[in-house]
Amino acid sequence: MKTLLLSFSVLLLSICAHAQTYEGPQEDIDGIIAGSRQFSKYVEAGDKEALAGCYTSDGKIFAGGRPIIEGTSDLAKYWTRDSEVTITYHKITAIEITVIGDLAYDYGLYEGTTRLADGTESNWQGKYVVVWKKVKGKWLMYLDIWNSSPKD
Amino acid sequence: MKTLLLSFSVLLLSICAHAQTYEGPQEDIDGIIAGSRQFSKYVEAGDKEALAGCYTSDGKIFAGGRPIIEGTSDLAKYWTRDSEVTITYHKITAIEITVIGDLAYDYGLYEGTTRLADGTESNWQGKYVVVWKKVKGKWLMYLDIWNSSPKD
Repeated sequence: MKTLLLSFSVLLLSICAHAQTYEGPQEDIDGIIAGSRQFSKYVEAGDKEALAGCYTSDGKIFAGGRPIIEGTSDLAKYWTRDSEVTITYHKITAIEITVIGDLAYDYGLYEGTTRLADGTESNWQGKYVVVWKKVKGKWLMYLDIWNSSPKD
Repeated sequence: MKTLLLSFSVLLLSICAHAQTYEGPQEDIDGIIAGSRQFSKYVEAGDKEALAGCYTSDGKIFAGGRPIIEGTSDLAKYWTRDSEVTITYHKITAIEITVIGDLAYDYGLYEGTTRLADGTESNWQGKYVVVWKKVKGKWLMYLDIWNSSPKD
């Protein structure tokens, strides 16, 4: 019975979790995952310069309701946060990463928590597609597009 | 003076128009542009089966406020339109297309017009990123993500 329950739990877990498909040299996959994790840390720290540095010099973001925003200076401006607002939590989960030479794409899910000055917190989640380029050995985002998802 | 005016007009035109960067074999670029045009025609025709056929069998769309939608049957469901609603106009403008073997990505702008049963029309526009795969010689969308843009 215990084994049956365990098997059932494992089955349930594998249904609930998103299958992850990572294709390409391990060091590139690791570089992209590390880049995403670093990005989340910078979001939590509100470090706009470091966030802009996660993109190629001609990197572009596609934010809802905004034109395409391009280039380090405008990206840093986009990532400048209202001082009253803190993003206390940010996480990216790559569902698929595919590396082809110095180019890669990945897609997945993001989630975060925003805290306002009055202490109110709100959670949000969405999905994204990123096209990456390897520049001088470092994986940087070239195209970064996302939109919201409903709560699970 | 005429020449000056003409030069100025050409300059203005080149500033206003988005520069287009297409990299890869011409037949692949043509295949992707043809795929996008066909897609717009199917949107205008409200042909959900044909729209689902513009994607790979494991194709995914990332629509705002929805989970990732995947696979031909669910894609056709997504593209099923309320019979009261007609999309009378749909256009995709690729700003950049990059082909690497049987894979490509492109990004650009879309615009459209929706007409309701009472004749009311609304225009909308946005930006997108698509990852394409060449399957049996035909370019199909594998990842399709978009969000809205403000009116110019």
